[in-house]
Amino acid sequence: MPQSPRYAYLGPAGTFTEAALLALPEGGEVEAVPHPSVPAAFDAVRSGECDAAVAAMESSVEGAVTATIDELANGEPLMIERELLLPVSFALLVRPGTPLEQVKTVASHPVAEPQCRRWLGRHLPEARWETAASNAEAAKQVRDGTFDGALAGAFTAARYGLEVLAEGIHDNEGAQTRFVVVTRPGPPAAPTGQDKTSITVGLRDNHPGELMEILEEFAGRGVNLCRIESRPTGEAMGKYYFFIDCEGHIADERVGEALLGLRRNSARLRFLGSYPRADRQAPVIRPGTTDAEFAEARDWLAAVRDGNR
Amino acid sequence: MPQSPRYAYLGPAGTFTEAALLALPEGGEVEAVPHPSVPAAFDAVRSGECDAAVAAMESSVEGAVTATIDELANGEPLMIERELLLPVSFALLVRPGTPLEQVKTVASHPVAEPQCRRWLGRHLPEARWETAASNAEAAKQVRDGTFDGALAGAFTAARYGLEVLAEGIHDNEGAQTRFVVVTRPGPPAAPTGQDKTSITVGLRDNHPGELMEILEEFAGRGVNLCRIESRPTGEAMGKYYFFIDCEGHIADERVGEALLGLRRNSARLRFLGSYPRADRQAPVIRPGTTDAEFAEARDWLAAVRDGNR
Amino acid sequence: MPQSPRYAYLGPAGTFTEAALLALPEGGEVEAVPHPSVPAAFDAVRSGECDAAVAAMESSVEGAVTATIDELANGEPLMIERELLLPVSFALLVRPGTPLEQVKTVASHPVAEPQCRRWLGRHLPEARWETAASNAEAAKQVRDGTFDGALAGAFTAARYGLEVLAEGIHDNEGAQTRFVVVTRPGPPAAPTGQDKTSITVGLRDNHPGELMEILEEFAGRGVNLCRIESRPTGEAMGKYYFFIDCEGHIADERVGEALLGLRRNSARLRFLGSYPRADRQAPVIRPGTTDAEFAEARDWLAAVRDGNR
Amino acid sequence: MPQSPRYAYLGPAGTFTEAALLALPEGGEVEAVPHPSVPAAFDAVRSGECDAAVAAMESSVEGAVTATIDELANGEPLMIERELLLPVSFALLVRPGTPLEQVKTVASHPVAEPQCRRWLGRHLPEARWETAASNAEAAKQVRDGTFDGALAGAFTAARYGLEVLAEGIHDNEGAQTRFVVVTRPGPPAAPTGQDKTSITVGLRDNHPGELMEILEEFAGRGVNLCRIESRPTGEAMGKYYFFIDCEGHIADERVGEALLGLRRNSARLRFLGSYPRADRQAPVIRPGTTDAEFAEARDWLAAVRDGNR
Repeated sequence: MPQSPRYAYLGPAGTFTEAALLALPEGGEVEAVPHPSVPAAFDAVRSGECDAAVAAMESSVEGAVTATIDELANGEPLMIERELLLPVSFALLVRPGTPLEQVKTVASHPVAEPQCRRWLGRHLPEARWETAASNAEAAKQVRDGTFDGALAGAFTAARYGLEVLAEGIHDNEGAQTRFVVVTRPGPPAAPTGQDKTSITVGLRDNHPGELMEILEEFAGRGVNLCRIESRPTGEAMGKYYFFIDCEGHIADERVGEALLGLRRNSARLRFLGSYPRADRQAPVIRPGTTDAEFAEARDWLAAVRDGNR
Repeated sequence: MPQSPRYAYLGPAGTFTEAALLALPEGGEVEAVPHPSVPAAFDAVRSGECDAAVAAMESSVEGAVTATIDELANGEPLMIERELLLPVSFALLVRPGTPLEQVKTVASHPVAEPQCRRWLGRHLPEARWETAASNAEAAKQVRDGTFDGALAGAFTAARYGLEVLAEGIHDNEGAQTRFVVVTRPGPPAAPTGQDKTSITVGLRDNHPGELMEILEEFAGRGVNLCRIESRPTGEAMGKYYFFIDCEGHIADERVGEALLGLRRNSARLRFLGSYPRADRQAPVIRPGTTDAEFAEARDWLAAVRDGNR
Repeated sequence: MPQSPRYAYLGPAGTFTEAALLALPEGGEVEAVPHPSVPAAFDAVRSGECDAAVAAMESSVEGAVTATIDELANGEPLMIERELLLPVSFALLVRPGTPLEQVKTVASHPVAEPQCRRWLGRHLPEARWETAASNAEAAKQVRDGTFDGALAGAFTAARYGLEVLAEGIHDNEGAQTRFVVVTRPGPPAAPTGQDKTSITVGLRDNHPGELMEILEEFAGRGVNLCRIESRPTGEAMGKYYFFIDCEGHIADERVGEALLGLRRNSARLRFLGSYPRADRQAPVIRPGTTDAEFAEARDWLAAVRDGNR
Repeated sequence: MPQSPRYAYLGPAGTFTEAALLALPEGGEVEAVPHPSVPAAFDAVRSGECDAAVAAMESSVEGAVTATIDELANGEPLMIERELLLPVSFALLVRPGTPLEQVKTVASHPVAEPQCRRWLGRHLPEARWETAASNAEAAKQVRDGTFDGALAGAFTAARYGLEVLAEGIHDNEGAQTRFVVVTRPGPPAAPTGQDKTSITVGLRDNHPGELMEILEEFAGRGVNLCRIESRPTGEAMGKYYFFIDCEGHIADERVGEALLGLRRNSARLRFLGSYPRADRQAPVIRPGTTDAEFAEARDWLAAVRDGNR
């Protein structure tokens, strides 16, 4: 009997990451394997113990999930195979029967608290907030009686025998989290026409304007950036590398040539994957940058080099 | 009798931020007022309750302290008046007499754990790590018996009646944290010749290449960037603003003209301060960008506009 | 009795330049003073002997009139006060009564012949072409019997007692010549909203990309170029200076700041004048580059430098 | 018996162009065929009547020879196979026995007169200058008694039975003329490491900054420009194309990629040839732009596209 694929995630059960994993098309059929940290989840993929890992990449409110970024940039190579966007919706979870006025302590992952601050200020101005390693961990500690309430997804309640006392308590309508599915390196996902490419790249010698030159490698070929994130290299204060998402697929000529430029003119370039955009937005392709135009130009150059005009 | 100035910081007593505050020249004479969060510390300055706040801005290992950045960018305006760099050195704090083999749980702020991971793996492979709101809070919880060890500065031990079991246990030699002293807006610090200017700036309409155009406002005037940090605006996934440190002082002509360009060509520009660089590094001033050359050019233009050549 | 103003031009009487001079609003009231060369005409202005000079600047067919450009760039400073565009229309002038089949030699300024080549090939395939110092000079030599036909404006015929044998014989429909009115330096013409600014500028040290940096001084401030002409400095093969026409007036903030940038970052910048465009085309002003936005930005910077936000 | 190769040039015998032709290594063995104009000389190559043409391209004093440029840009395609630099040295040629004081008229090609103006002003202030189709033509007319003196190369004297009355009479020490040898299109000359590539290129839609984008295609790949010349397209006032010489050979990867970019993003690109630089100057090759680095980057991209890292 064939084994189910195994997917690693940041546990314990009941986290948003688990919800993301379950939201995948194959979510119902894979074995979800919780890990205590993103590096641990990724290591499970590297070692072959798991087939993929699901990890939060970015919050529209709190920004980059740096543990994910740094691990993709610095750890043994992995590949982003897919991304998905999940709306963020927080609930206040309590032990069954607890009324609002008895909630004196509220626990959550540090990312959750600022997203619910306005609601908390209005409805629980006296409650003390406590940090937890994950929202699911907070729920577990509510179950165990350590705290009175947990900020977590409503779906977490059932896992720990809790009750949803209030739903949709996050301040920011439309907040989303972006998750990625990470695998061992291999051929990138097939192009769909609405793709994104992720890389990390460093400066070669930190000369003035070097970051602009890196951006020009994209701009000069009509490749738009979706996002650029600077991260410390860890070597010294003031040394950074960049995590960049750009429009398009590595199979696209314009993206390929931009990467060639980076390969020649930057340091520690790492290709992290080309994959369909979760928002299905198609790129605006500037005239002169289609694959057909690249091919035509290449034919022309070959002919001219041979002396035919 | 005149009151001592009051400086807010991220407490409780014993944090690295308090250590930074005490390391200021006036550290011994000010009243250090702990606050539960960076926003709370900043609010104390805004309200006039405190005269200044000290906050961590950036770690050479973990990167930006986003709470500080976002609060400076989005909260009621404040000004960075100074920065300082502190070496980061972690110790393992325990209740007096605890031997290493009895340390089963170790607590710390989430930023501390990754910086000591290698040491922990080698010396306490079995210990479980627990998150705490600050390293000082972890120390307090060790004192109270909740946990066995805390990752914190050695200086924290005395505050909570603890003992330093191991010192210098961070993996990364030379790690530093950058702190800023924040005040209500006012005239910037006087230029010293080794200054830095901090701003936040947003894109106007997110057209392709707009970030490059922003960088070109600096590069075109010979102003080098020290750092660029992208942060979500919170409006939607994929919308960012940028936190930028550049070389030079707002009183410098070249910096002034770059800011004029940003003011005209970007959105939500906020000047956060010009202040002496903690690393005392003087900028390389490109020919054609000295104040004298700006002044000469302006004289020339005025004469030419008047018809004198 | 007040004297008429005196305008120098490239003579003798009957040249296109004289026609341009006469086409000026004041053309009927000035004394037109012919000179044997552009430098001589300009010297007459410099010495005060004439009040202005009219000179051809550019042909839509033959390109720059380098004598005019080089003299403006290298001679004692003068100022372009106005420009005008004249359609170019060539006629074949002969002694009265000469039939086409008796035209064995045709003379003209070297610029005229290529513009009539197709007509000549069709109607006078056997005729020999001879060079003359100007088209009017050619007409004079036809009168004197040296040649049989002259390529010149139809208006030249009367001056030399010649007859127009064929009109509109130039190959290129819509050909135009651009003339400038040049005076001693003074305040530039008042802005009209459809202005042009002319400068010459050199490279400082000929480093790679230096020309691009010069163009960026314009582009970065939203100032479009109308034209760029490279000319040898005369020092050595491969050394050039540039003659540039840009949109806008030196009184415009964006043009002024671009010139400031050039003044600081280039060599031998010379302002040659801001004057109304002959084609009345208004510039497209990029958002962020209006005078009002410059003024607002400057107010903002002044306030921020003073500590007010 | 095999025929000598036939080389077309701007005649008549005795021009600087003929001197350039004779200065070629094979100059003594080819049949030099004079033509009345540059287009005529080029047409002789196009028709197969001649094997090559020699033409002046540029003077370090007077700038571009526009007839040559425009014919290469707009006529039936030809290829630049070689260039050579000749010092320019003018002499005053007279009929044998003529003393200086009897020289009342001096003739020359219009390009010659400004280069000797200072000498003429000092030694022949009263003499009248007359234009001629070429300096050799002027010499012929001196022989025939039409004029008294001709400005030409000393080597022209013997051709027309004249005498050199004064030598080295040009004002500008070190003046040079650049000549090109033009053939029917074919494979470019083999790379030597000190090569130059010539192209013409037009703007696609004349949008603001389009010229900068064209220059960026070179600069972004580390290809330095030697020269850029703007020329009217002839369509209308204000429409230009550009004649560009850049460092390097079309066989160089960086040059090839720059041309690919132009092919995709500009109009009417025409490759005119890659050939050894007459001044033997080797290009400074920017790190990241060697052929080896291009090849390495391409291997990397191919591997990554295949899923190997």
